[in-house]
Amino acid sequence: MDCEIITIGDEIMTGHTVDSNSAAISELLTSIGINVKYRSSIGDSVEAMEESFHLALKRVRLIITTGGLGPTDDDLTKRAIVKVFRRNLVFHEDLLEDIKARWSARGIEMPAINQNQALLPQGATFFPNKNGSAVGICITESGRIFISLPGVPFEMKQILTDEIMPYLKNLSGTRPISVLKLRTTGIVESKLAEIIMSDLQLEPGVRLAYLPGFSGVDLRILATSDSQERSDAKAESLARKIESKCGKYIYGRNDDTLESAIGQLLRDNDKTICTAESCTGGQLGQIITTISGSSDYFVGSVVAYDDAVKIEQLEVDPATLKKYGAVSEQTALQMAAGARKLFGTDYALSITGIAGPEGGTDEKPVGNIWIGLASAHSNIARLFSLGRERQVNRARASYAALELLRRDILDL
Amino acid sequence: MDCEIITIGDEIMTGHTVDSNSAAISELLTSIGINVKYRSSIGDSVEAMEESFHLALKRVRLIITTGGLGPTDDDLTKRAIVKVFRRNLVFHEDLLEDIKARWSARGIEMPAINQNQALLPQGATFFPNKNGSAVGICITESGRIFISLPGVPFEMKQILTDEIMPYLKNLSGTRPISVLKLRTTGIVESKLAEIIMSDLQLEPGVRLAYLPGFSGVDLRILATSDSQERSDAKAESLARKIESKCGKYIYGRNDDTLESAIGQLLRDNDKTICTAESCTGGQLGQIITTISGSSDYFVGSVVAYDDAVKIEQLEVDPATLKKYGAVSEQTALQMAAGARKLFGTDYALSITGIAGPEGGTDEKPVGNIWIGLASAHSNIARLFSLGRERQVNRARASYAALELLRRDILDL
Repeated sequence: MDCEIITIGDEIMTGHTVDSNSAAISELLTSIGINVKYRSSIGDSVEAMEESFHLALKRVRLIITTGGLGPTDDDLTKRAIVKVFRRNLVFHEDLLEDIKARWSARGIEMPAINQNQALLPQGATFFPNKNGSAVGICITESGRIFISLPGVPFEMKQILTDEIMPYLKNLSGTRPISVLKLRTTGIVESKLAEIIMSDLQLEPGVRLAYLPGFSGVDLRILATSDSQERSDAKAESLARKIESKCGKYIYGRNDDTLESAIGQLLRDNDKTICTAESCTGGQLGQIITTISGSSDYFVGSVVAYDDAVKIEQLEVDPATLKKYGAVSEQTALQMAAGARKLFGTDYALSITGIAGPEGGTDEKPVGNIWIGLASAHSNIARLFSLGRERQVNRARASYAALELLRRDILDL
Repeated sequence: MDCEIITIGDEIMTGHTVDSNSAAISELLTSIGINVKYRSSIGDSVEAMEESFHLALKRVRLIITTGGLGPTDDDLTKRAIVKVFRRNLVFHEDLLEDIKARWSARGIEMPAINQNQALLPQGATFFPNKNGSAVGICITESGRIFISLPGVPFEMKQILTDEIMPYLKNLSGTRPISVLKLRTTGIVESKLAEIIMSDLQLEPGVRLAYLPGFSGVDLRILATSDSQERSDAKAESLARKIESKCGKYIYGRNDDTLESAIGQLLRDNDKTICTAESCTGGQLGQIITTISGSSDYFVGSVVAYDDAVKIEQLEVDPATLKKYGAVSEQTALQMAAGARKLFGTDYALSITGIAGPEGGTDEKPVGNIWIGLASAHSNIARLFSLGRERQVNRARASYAALELLRRDILDL
């Protein structure tokens, strides 16, 4: 089945916002064998929407739009829908009650303008929005499926995942496809490709993609066959081959993250952890605690941005700071050991570095970041020479710290 | 002048890659008054390109494509161009010499496949690529301008900025436009619209968009007129009117962020800050330290995920935790006061709440988050009732804490 994704909003057309919705939708549709043939974006204009909806209805069977479903004057998608499909807007009393309840749960009286959100095209199906008041709208007509979703990414994703995907999977015209992701860290893309592709031929109908990100390189396997079972078996067979070649770099599959893998390892081994952070400002703790239930193993952090905090809270020796500086192996080692003592945990990770763009010297350039680890059996530190971009360096350093811990726990 | 941007590549259509080129091009074109009316994306297929180029040539005067200009088999843009414009590919000896020189400067012999890059459509103009071997291609025909750029973002941006922008600025048909962004926080979109639109009529040629995000709602003003000065004046006039109506919600303009605005306030007032975080795990400190130079005012944090850390590091009274719980006004107040004492700062912010999705009760549902503030003159706490999604709740709580501080410093 061919699909067109249409994202709507002046903020997209002027470049204020990078359109991430299109990629998120494309990825999910591709994973169930729907072919995203066209993608387009248009501004907040009823005329532009009409033109674009008509064109899409001519050339594909499935159309998914995002944006323009809010309550304000620049939210015009419903107006275009009723024109294109020649329908009226109908007021839904029950929906208004839901929306009012949502506002009062937040302790705010609903502004009158939000009544608009209970007006919906006649004869449409609605998909509930758990995170906002703009519901998803679905119209089927003349063999076409037209779905409108809100533009706020986390609202869009919730409706897409919980409502639209199960709906689309049940339609005819989708091909059995199996998608499997192996998640690696601590190795660059080209080296990974060298290891994997030595004496390996991909079966027909199997594709392998290398997807690099902050926490490592993901390997995406896409397998198609004439049945779901055979597609799954093909994907699994390649995954096993890759795991046997470079298993130590693979921390998980599919939705596993480095932080969820670490969390599982700590929980399985009944161990606890804390962190001591300088240049990351709290990001390592933030990443560890993205996992709900991380309180089982994560105790706390000290963010020691000022050297006085390193000395007073983490017991870093002032003489060490003076002799080697805050960005040094010695300081990283002492920060980790100090945090482990302070919090009484099994493991402690520390990060101290020059995130940039300011603060670099010839001896210690921007991107030089020391990661430390303390445990009952070791106190080690590693230097990472990262790039010039502050936010990228901070994210990479946080994941490098988690990888150092993973290797230590697994003795890799 | 109306423009269509067409981005090309299978990696875009499957969602492997978020298309950031479209936004980058849109932003630059908008800034010189070119109206980006359509944006579309298609896969690596000559047929899809032909169809899409023909459609674009019908509906706009300027077309910019990215992608598909590399040397490999899936780089098909030139094949589509010669079909659509009925031209031949011509071999450019001088260009081949340039490409060979580029490879030998890297100490590598040019792989033979790269000879393709010296084949270019007859009668086209070329824009040099400083960072790669795929040059930009420009064809003008029947009043249309068709420009093809490589898809690698930093190569695309260099050609666009250095070559295409000066070229487009000299064309007739571009209208002077002024874009101005007011950044608000602490107020919802619909309430903001109610305040702004009461007794306000937008002048002709002026548009106002509401752009919600985690840290608040941005207001984007877009004004056009017959000269740059008059466009700027129109935009500024509306900005002033909005500022007089709801100035207390506006923390900055354009590239200002809530964390940069807070940083400026602290620096201007020669004040320091620290944080005490529970459910955010370090995110508030991470956000404050996204600003290079934040060490001037940010001292450090305690992430007190475990209650023992709240007691030992932040001096929260165990009786308070027992009586009111960790997620309570009393605990938030004591966390802030304790952090301020520990770090010796002027201000301290605390966050303690139920980020979800687990851990909610009837009395304290998921999304209930207390934010505390301690300073020489106040110790306050506010309850925020946020949504159900963990990561969204944590980001919103972090920005709500910054907003509480902004209000306190400015006495709003």
